[in-house]
Amino acid sequence: MERIRVGVLGATGAVGQRFVQLLDGHPWFELAVLAASGRSAGKRYADACHWILRGDMPETVRDMVLEQIAPGLECDLLFSALPSDIAREIEPALAKAGYAVCSNASAYRMEPDIPLLIPEVNPDHTALIDVQRHRRGWSGFIVTNPNCTTTHLVSALKPIHDAFGLEKVFIVSMQAISGAGYPGVSSMDILDNVIPYIEGEEEKVEREPLKLLGHLAGDHVEMADITISAQCNRVAVRNGHTESVSVSLRRPASREEIVDVLRSFRGVPQELNLPHAPQPPILVREEANRPQPRLDRLAGNVPGMATIVGRVRPCPLLDWKFVVMGHNTIRGAAGGALLNAELLVAQGFIGSHTLSGESKGA
Amino acid sequence: MERIRVGVLGATGAVGQRFVQLLDGHPWFELAVLAASGRSAGKRYADACHWILRGDMPETVRDMVLEQIAPGLECDLLFSALPSDIAREIEPALAKAGYAVCSNASAYRMEPDIPLLIPEVNPDHTALIDVQRHRRGWSGFIVTNPNCTTTHLVSALKPIHDAFGLEKVFIVSMQAISGAGYPGVSSMDILDNVIPYIEGEEEKVEREPLKLLGHLAGDHVEMADITISAQCNRVAVRNGHTESVSVSLRRPASREEIVDVLRSFRGVPQELNLPHAPQPPILVREEANRPQPRLDRLAGNVPGMATIVGRVRPCPLLDWKFVVMGHNTIRGAAGGALLNAELLVAQGFIGSHTLSGESKGA
Amino acid sequence: MERIRVGVLGATGAVGQRFVQLLDGHPWFELAVLAASGRSAGKRYADACHWILRGDMPETVRDMVLEQIAPGLECDLLFSALPSDIAREIEPALAKAGYAVCSNASAYRMEPDIPLLIPEVNPDHTALIDVQRHRRGWSGFIVTNPNCTTTHLVSALKPIHDAFGLEKVFIVSMQAISGAGYPGVSSMDILDNVIPYIEGEEEKVEREPLKLLGHLAGDHVEMADITISAQCNRVAVRNGHTESVSVSLRRPASREEIVDVLRSFRGVPQELNLPHAPQPPILVREEANRPQPRLDRLAGNVPGMATIVGRVRPCPLLDWKFVVMGHNTIRGAAGGALLNAELLVAQGFIGSHTLSGESKGA
Amino acid sequence: MERIRVGVLGATGAVGQRFVQLLDGHPWFELAVLAASGRSAGKRYADACHWILRGDMPETVRDMVLEQIAPGLECDLLFSALPSDIAREIEPALAKAGYAVCSNASAYRMEPDIPLLIPEVNPDHTALIDVQRHRRGWSGFIVTNPNCTTTHLVSALKPIHDAFGLEKVFIVSMQAISGAGYPGVSSMDILDNVIPYIEGEEEKVEREPLKLLGHLAGDHVEMADITISAQCNRVAVRNGHTESVSVSLRRPASREEIVDVLRSFRGVPQELNLPHAPQPPILVREEANRPQPRLDRLAGNVPGMATIVGRVRPCPLLDWKFVVMGHNTIRGAAGGALLNAELLVAQGFIGSHTLSGESKGA
Repeated sequence: MERIRVGVLGATGAVGQRFVQLLDGHPWFELAVLAASGRSAGKRYADACHWILRGDMPETVRDMVLEQIAPGLECDLLFSALPSDIAREIEPALAKAGYAVCSNASAYRMEPDIPLLIPEVNPDHTALIDVQRHRRGWSGFIVTNPNCTTTHLVSALKPIHDAFGLEKVFIVSMQAISGAGYPGVSSMDILDNVIPYIEGEEEKVEREPLKLLGHLAGDHVEMADITISAQCNRVAVRNGHTESVSVSLRRPASREEIVDVLRSFRGVPQELNLPHAPQPPILVREEANRPQPRLDRLAGNVPGMATIVGRVRPCPLLDWKFVVMGHNTIRGAAGGALLNAELLVAQGFIGSHTLSGESKGA
Repeated sequence: MERIRVGVLGATGAVGQRFVQLLDGHPWFELAVLAASGRSAGKRYADACHWILRGDMPETVRDMVLEQIAPGLECDLLFSALPSDIAREIEPALAKAGYAVCSNASAYRMEPDIPLLIPEVNPDHTALIDVQRHRRGWSGFIVTNPNCTTTHLVSALKPIHDAFGLEKVFIVSMQAISGAGYPGVSSMDILDNVIPYIEGEEEKVEREPLKLLGHLAGDHVEMADITISAQCNRVAVRNGHTESVSVSLRRPASREEIVDVLRSFRGVPQELNLPHAPQPPILVREEANRPQPRLDRLAGNVPGMATIVGRVRPCPLLDWKFVVMGHNTIRGAAGGALLNAELLVAQGFIGSHTLSGESKGA
Repeated sequence: MERIRVGVLGATGAVGQRFVQLLDGHPWFELAVLAASGRSAGKRYADACHWILRGDMPETVRDMVLEQIAPGLECDLLFSALPSDIAREIEPALAKAGYAVCSNASAYRMEPDIPLLIPEVNPDHTALIDVQRHRRGWSGFIVTNPNCTTTHLVSALKPIHDAFGLEKVFIVSMQAISGAGYPGVSSMDILDNVIPYIEGEEEKVEREPLKLLGHLAGDHVEMADITISAQCNRVAVRNGHTESVSVSLRRPASREEIVDVLRSFRGVPQELNLPHAPQPPILVREEANRPQPRLDRLAGNVPGMATIVGRVRPCPLLDWKFVVMGHNTIRGAAGGALLNAELLVAQGFIGSHTLSGESKGA
Repeated sequence: MERIRVGVLGATGAVGQRFVQLLDGHPWFELAVLAASGRSAGKRYADACHWILRGDMPETVRDMVLEQIAPGLECDLLFSALPSDIAREIEPALAKAGYAVCSNASAYRMEPDIPLLIPEVNPDHTALIDVQRHRRGWSGFIVTNPNCTTTHLVSALKPIHDAFGLEKVFIVSMQAISGAGYPGVSSMDILDNVIPYIEGEEEKVEREPLKLLGHLAGDHVEMADITISAQCNRVAVRNGHTESVSVSLRRPASREEIVDVLRSFRGVPQELNLPHAPQPPILVREEANRPQPRLDRLAGNVPGMATIVGRVRPCPLLDWKFVVMGHNTIRGAAGGALLNAELLVAQGFIGSHTLSGESKGA
């Protein structure tokens, strides 16, 4: 199979670097375009990018020249690591110009005709792509992934919701500093400290799961009938968000049943054996003190892509309490968008036969 | 007023050191006795104690010789910083021998005839002392303070419960390493990490508030009719526990009313102007990102004794969400026991006229 | 004594805040002016300043309006917390306009006619003020304090140099994050890490001590004949720089003699009992593992102003090794400039009789 | 080639776990024996060992039963992660009983007839094995690796010493917490702190390099004529020791020559292509702020085995300054002992033909 040419928007930032890292050596995608905002465009990637990930910048990208973010980029698929306000401006123009845009930005996540997608959770929601194209007159499209905390929360909730019906969810997050990008959180603010506030985060975590777990009804998604209360905190952890979760269910479940549906869950990415599909998608630990971000954030066969659950136990107030943990910049950001793209390829939404490169940027 | 002679049990540990520090220069209490378990007894305090608090060990205690923990200690009031299993063995013998024991240990907190006390919350529960003495034939008595997380949680809940009636409480804690004592948490376990488990803690936080907010009914406390669900985590913070809390109320309350009852709350310690009474006991912050442990744990006129509340906002699931933060080894441990003792002096339970030193250890 | 009206330049930054905090309630100085660069000028201090120090912003400054940094400020003495490049532009204009400028900036530290001053080390160097005024035609003047690492290094070296003559100095620093200001060091860069580089720092530490320990020779300072090699590292400590030091001496000294000259050292600030003079200026610890920044950075009677020395022991390569530690934003920055000003008042360089307010900004 | 049966002594500790991890899937060695001190012997490894490394305990060792540390262990080669005092007692008995002992303990490092070995530095020193066997009447032998700080220091110094002759070395280390084992350093001691002392460490770093860089002279090593001054600090880094180094040379060298000999250095392990030989052994970085432990500790083709050097620049006092960094529990401990064993196999000191299993424990 000829590899699909892809680009990364916002390639110099923290999430952009994760895209570059994960795309290095990808079996289906060829990283052909790096694009960044005005000041960096025209520079060598190695010169413009302060690489912050462990391991050196891949040799193959060092000499690539950053391009302006605008139609004309020579590729079919664009991964967007843009800030939300810039994404809001530019992603529609790119979709209109024919690009498949897999965006990590929050700008369009809740739009009725734009899929908010976790491949294991709601792979059928990609049907909105046709609605979107038709309604907006785009030859390309936009697909989004949820925010990092929502991603792992909903990944863990999905099998429980399918089996027993979720009614209420209480979630308190302890989120890693990498979630704020680079330079992000000042060391003066987080050393020996907790910051009990992350702007806009609680709203996203209370809202995005309803669309992800919602039912596709023709040209839109009917929101799931679940009430969520979220409290989000920043802690001195580099990578990996930890979430203390309580849920009430519509149908009774035993502890064994909860653990069993989590352990045995397999989604479409697992069935299709997509390159970045964790096998299995959910790891359940039985130790009293796990999962822990430092020990477990890279667990599983595809590092950083699995969701780890532990401490499943009764809740005096709702039904069950447990801890959810997962890597926030891999599955929770770049890796999530990448798996979305892999699903879209498998579903035929992306591919040389689907997107006519000639039409773009015309 | 002649100062009351006091002793500290378990004086070399982390909480014991806080007792020593807080008692240095106390207007009512004279630190006359330091006691520790077998190995340290007989040594100079300066030799036996690895001082871990900021600021040097007070000069006055350096040459004091550690005594065995047993009747015969020449003082009237004992502060116990003993581990729970040792406390369970030895505190009754000391109470029987005539000592007033203000204990930070968990061993007897839930005993029906032993007060579990926060002076601002349930000062009338000290009436159990007479029940206790009569029932057990003790000339002294035991009074306990709750665990660190419960202390600040209930301090914040008390005015809300009084005004609007609590029905349900969700609480997720992010607890400081000092709560585990010294050496306590290995740096290998907590650097760049969260540990989502503290042994026995969630049970305490779900149970102790019910007694603290309960109603004194003759010779016992009727537990408050509140359902609590707790999840406790350890984070890389030195001092100060942060708690994400949601509550539902029996009577409707506006945000302004919640904040107002918190701000205007004054308890018996404030009315009596006890030496370690924070004035006011609860500080409410309006910034979106406060309280924070590093910035706020020493806030107020008596450092480490106040409870700080912030982010009061509606909860989609219960009624109100907010953040509670307070110092865990001051008000949450040694300072809590000290304020208990100050209340007991003011109430006449402790004093040379009350406790006959001659009877002790006879 | 009528208090002297003072102002703080760069009042919203990390060092500016320290100035505000230290000046709150100062017996000699009245904080009359807060000034900041263009964007903040005109705003209330409470609105423009993101307060990062423990404890709240003093009530007295909350409503003060930030002024432009320019002649016309209604005060006699200005403390400068400006970045070096801005200081280079504006401080001469202010000195010319009649202000006494006590600057923490590095811009003019090595100018031959501008004192680089530690009051315990080279109080006579203030004689350069007259040279400076005469040569430059200024009615005011500039006095500087050294960088944070140099301050504590030279404070410890001074008594040794006086007694035994320094020849060579090796110093490796482990510097706190607060030294980089706010937001300063990204948490992504320093959590679980050491950064073995601080721009420009090693050059300063190798050069500034030579002027500080130099000999005043009429209108200039003859640099001390000492060779210094510095290596500077950033570590995950909030406040307090730790320095591993080795020295060779021109005259032999025993360990006891070294410790004795450190312990018995008293400087002019101590003799004059200046408000911020630590008594004594140098604390020597005998424990094998001290000083430590968290435990010792606030040691002494004036928190953050003393220099702490420990581990004095033979060096196989030079003569003696020891550890120096001190608070970097108090004595190492704002507190150093403040003690300089206190010395200048005592020496008569600052005061209503010395500086004619009328001439300023005219 | 039939794999050689090996065992790990002190298998449950931090270094013991690294041995287990590194031996998992080793091409030459089969992990056949796990041994531990009295209390753990007889238990399953999964039950006795609190696994602290990232990634789960290898499945293959979970059910192995821990044996007593005594002759009778069914293997030929023993890796010792024992504490020094226990190693001192038991390693000679094991060597006498016929085992090849590759020890990370410090007990016998400086014995004249026991090799202190870094395969890239002094592979010829294994000739002492015959001296040792003959003199002590052992059928087995002991070979040691240096302490973690010395390992990376000497690895970097070796090419410079060979080319230009070292005369003096000044080194200040900032050492990771994992170097103290588990639980090791209390989080209460290191959060927001530096500890300027590690017991016994400076003596080792000043002494061990002299033997490593010494000249084999018949039955002993003539110590290198180098003077070293070391200062060792503990910092809040999980893995990776950072060292600020200055050196003076006997023959002049340019910066380019220094960098060149570091970059081009290859040792016997590289020539023999031993399984754990990093290729190349030394990585030189040109960025001003590298190496950094978090970014570089796993750099190179065999993670954790390379030594990273950066910031090569002139020293005002000696000749050259630079920064050395390397992983302390891989190359600095278990990985160092493992590479020693691989060299000994290549040299014929270990192998079924060399060690007669029958003789052991008789």
